[in-house]
Amino acid sequence: MSTSAKPFLQALVDAVGADAVVPGAEVAPRHLSDWSGAPPVVPLALVRPRSTAEVAAVLRLCHAHRVPVVPQGGLTGLAGAAVPAADGIALSLDRMNAIESLDTAAATLTVQAGATLQAVQEAAAAQGLLFGVDLGARGSCQIGGNLATNAGGNGVLQFGMMREQTLGLEVVLADGSVLPMLRPMVKNNTGYDLKQFFIGAEGTLGVITRAILRLQPAPRARATVLVALAGPDDFQAALALLRRLQARFPGAVAAFELMWRDFVEASLRWQALREPFEAPHPLTALVDVTGATEDALHTALESVLGEAMEAGEVADAVVAQSQAQAQALWKIREATAELPTHMRPPINFDVSLPMADIGRFAEACRDALTARWPAHLTIFFGHVGDGNLHLSTDARTVGGDEAGVEQMVYGLVAEFGGSVSAEHGIGLHKKPYLGASRSPAELAAMRAIKQALDPLGLLNPGKIFDPHPAPAHQDTP
Amino acid sequence: MSTSAKPFLQALVDAVGADAVVPGAEVAPRHLSDWSGAPPVVPLALVRPRSTAEVAAVLRLCHAHRVPVVPQGGLTGLAGAAVPAADGIALSLDRMNAIESLDTAAATLTVQAGATLQAVQEAAAAQGLLFGVDLGARGSCQIGGNLATNAGGNGVLQFGMMREQTLGLEVVLADGSVLPMLRPMVKNNTGYDLKQFFIGAEGTLGVITRAILRLQPAPRARATVLVALAGPDDFQAALALLRRLQARFPGAVAAFELMWRDFVEASLRWQALREPFEAPHPLTALVDVTGATEDALHTALESVLGEAMEAGEVADAVVAQSQAQAQALWKIREATAELPTHMRPPINFDVSLPMADIGRFAEACRDALTARWPAHLTIFFGHVGDGNLHLSTDARTVGGDEAGVEQMVYGLVAEFGGSVSAEHGIGLHKKPYLGASRSPAELAAMRAIKQALDPLGLLNPGKIFDPHPAPAHQDTP
Repeated sequence: MSTSAKPFLQALVDAVGADAVVPGAEVAPRHLSDWSGAPPVVPLALVRPRSTAEVAAVLRLCHAHRVPVVPQGGLTGLAGAAVPAADGIALSLDRMNAIESLDTAAATLTVQAGATLQAVQEAAAAQGLLFGVDLGARGSCQIGGNLATNAGGNGVLQFGMMREQTLGLEVVLADGSVLPMLRPMVKNNTGYDLKQFFIGAEGTLGVITRAILRLQPAPRARATVLVALAGPDDFQAALALLRRLQARFPGAVAAFELMWRDFVEASLRWQALREPFEAPHPLTALVDVTGATEDALHTALESVLGEAMEAGEVADAVVAQSQAQAQALWKIREATAELPTHMRPPINFDVSLPMADIGRFAEACRDALTARWPAHLTIFFGHVGDGNLHLSTDARTVGGDEAGVEQMVYGLVAEFGGSVSAEHGIGLHKKPYLGASRSPAELAAMRAIKQALDPLGLLNPGKIFDPHPAPAHQDTP
Repeated sequence: MSTSAKPFLQALVDAVGADAVVPGAEVAPRHLSDWSGAPPVVPLALVRPRSTAEVAAVLRLCHAHRVPVVPQGGLTGLAGAAVPAADGIALSLDRMNAIESLDTAAATLTVQAGATLQAVQEAAAAQGLLFGVDLGARGSCQIGGNLATNAGGNGVLQFGMMREQTLGLEVVLADGSVLPMLRPMVKNNTGYDLKQFFIGAEGTLGVITRAILRLQPAPRARATVLVALAGPDDFQAALALLRRLQARFPGAVAAFELMWRDFVEASLRWQALREPFEAPHPLTALVDVTGATEDALHTALESVLGEAMEAGEVADAVVAQSQAQAQALWKIREATAELPTHMRPPINFDVSLPMADIGRFAEACRDALTARWPAHLTIFFGHVGDGNLHLSTDARTVGGDEAGVEQMVYGLVAEFGGSVSAEHGIGLHKKPYLGASRSPAELAAMRAIKQALDPLGLLNPGKIFDPHPAPAHQDTP
């Protein structure tokens, strides 16, 4: 910053009031880092504006004083994008948490950035509607953060990511000017679709203050089935089953989670559960479909599964006959909650791959890890209906060599033309590996956009990428 | 341009061959304008590259010689975005028309920009899949143009616009550098989603050369129903019916077209058709739903329509019992093909509005037109499930005052917070009205993005907006 801290902080207090400015030394620990486990950083101050006008006033001041700004939502991010800068302010949107309106006829909702995802879900449910994004941190994460990271989660297969739920945005730019894009229209081809620039930009291009989101009709019924895939190439069988289900339940396949045997074994052991089938199978799919009535869903599911068995795609299947049975099947998949207890610590990956190659990638990855660390424990699972694979390695079984495992996995991701971050974002944590998923030309274009919208580099500096090209070893691990 | 034309044209011929460079005087008339009816412009040359490498070579040359470039697809646009510049080249992608690959397991397709929409649809259909975008110009329009204009059309309600079908793009930038973003992943949160910048930018930020598109399972059955909405607020009844249908057929309501009585009357008269109901109704909806079997669809439709009648939303309904009956019902909606014959000429609008306000907007619009031109003939209809309203006024009934009608309608669109272009784009035709849908802050941000990616202003210059803020009367009619 170009001036001493004192007059700047005083100007902040003058602009938004003393109760909205917490000096660095008094900032609560939860605002110093996020769920990524990145080392805490104490900012100059935590600022908690109550309105878009106050956000704009704060950003104008920061612009005039050349002070960096790190926007903060619910601080549940896994990539470190909300960790403060020591020479900047942390800008929390938590006071701007109103659900301003809900239009049942249009199935849209206008919300301030600081509202939690759960508050949005509950407001929709109260009107018989559904918000299409759901994830584990729903009670803490905020809509502004969901937008800034283009959150994925449980509903992507059916409804897409946060981007697809967003009709309008209000954003405050680095210089404090307000970009009003709060239009509720699905179709609006009037020049550049500017809101797209800010979704997934992790707070580096502007501060999202309000949004208009689209809602879905709440499904009346849901059915769950656990499927053991068959055949010599069980991954291709899984894809064939997915296409078969999507043809029979168009727009209504709500989950298609794959679990490799290593995952199922660990899950059953950790949770003391029984084998779901008579024999173990190398690859298992957990499927949810939605529709008008449970009876109709069960009838249709049994018919599709029969076809799939005849086609040699499915070896065995269990259709849940009650809500309790459905929960029991889902419990196998939800072993991820046990990861921090049973892997110390887990080395977690959230990668995306071309759909047809996920099976080969999982094999190549397992083989490469085994060649170097014969005793490694790695489990493979994921939202494979979206092309999203997760894997977790127990650090103790690779001699604690987290960097070695990351370089090996991300190297394979690059070879397969995949993405080092399907849904968690880059933040600080994956900056060294961004070059594995993005070409130098793309990185140059990103820097040009950053320069155009934030020429002083004040918004969330050092997140996603550094302003100037980094040395080769940083971009290409 | 900074040099005389001769050496530049010779350099072009050296780079891509004489057969790929057509001198201005020899350019076929169809390349001089598009379906907007904008006055034809003869370019320096028409260039027809065969590969991305040739597009890059052409753009490098244009950059070195400061020559404007107007990309051209199928030239079916209605806004004038593909009209050449007299001091630039027209760059036709028509030779790059290969469908490079189709991955049935992943349900994706890789295509060059010059392939027609119909070729993509047919390639998908040959594998039992469906491409989610469809529009009347399918046989001529090209995928590159569909992407550059974020095309809408008939499938938006179920599958979204062109943007939602796009997983990856390859783009050549103004300086001839290639931006490779051809990744087939649904989930890829690795920094800015650059491809979003080029979709809908009407060729002003880069030249789209290839794309990876997502495909859908082809629906097995389709049912059509014509519904007379019930009063006293029949537009709100229409919205309630839409939500009811979407709850019963999640993801499977494929069309929800509204027709006001003026439209139905004109359609029946022009095509000598019979009234579809015993009595005329002020508002009619044409609905398509898709599913597994026709029998199941009909049973479910009858049950939903019964509920809607009890709820006072529906006055009467006809469910098509055969493909022929479905076509007969759709014929009423397809009167738009008769517009150029029966209105001389039609003054056409393609606007978007907040869903809940479309009924009020149509009334306000009709009242305003009647107050000034008591004998005007205007018909109201549209893809109302997407918030998209079309209206057409017979120019003869308003004394030929096209500009007067446009100013009145776009003024009301601005008042209602709507969009002056739902799906056709801005191009040249709607430039004067862009300010009715975009704030000065948004226009400034668009100019900053343009400056960042095309600092010399060579790509499709003067389309969407002028490089520098125009006088007030241009942005706010």
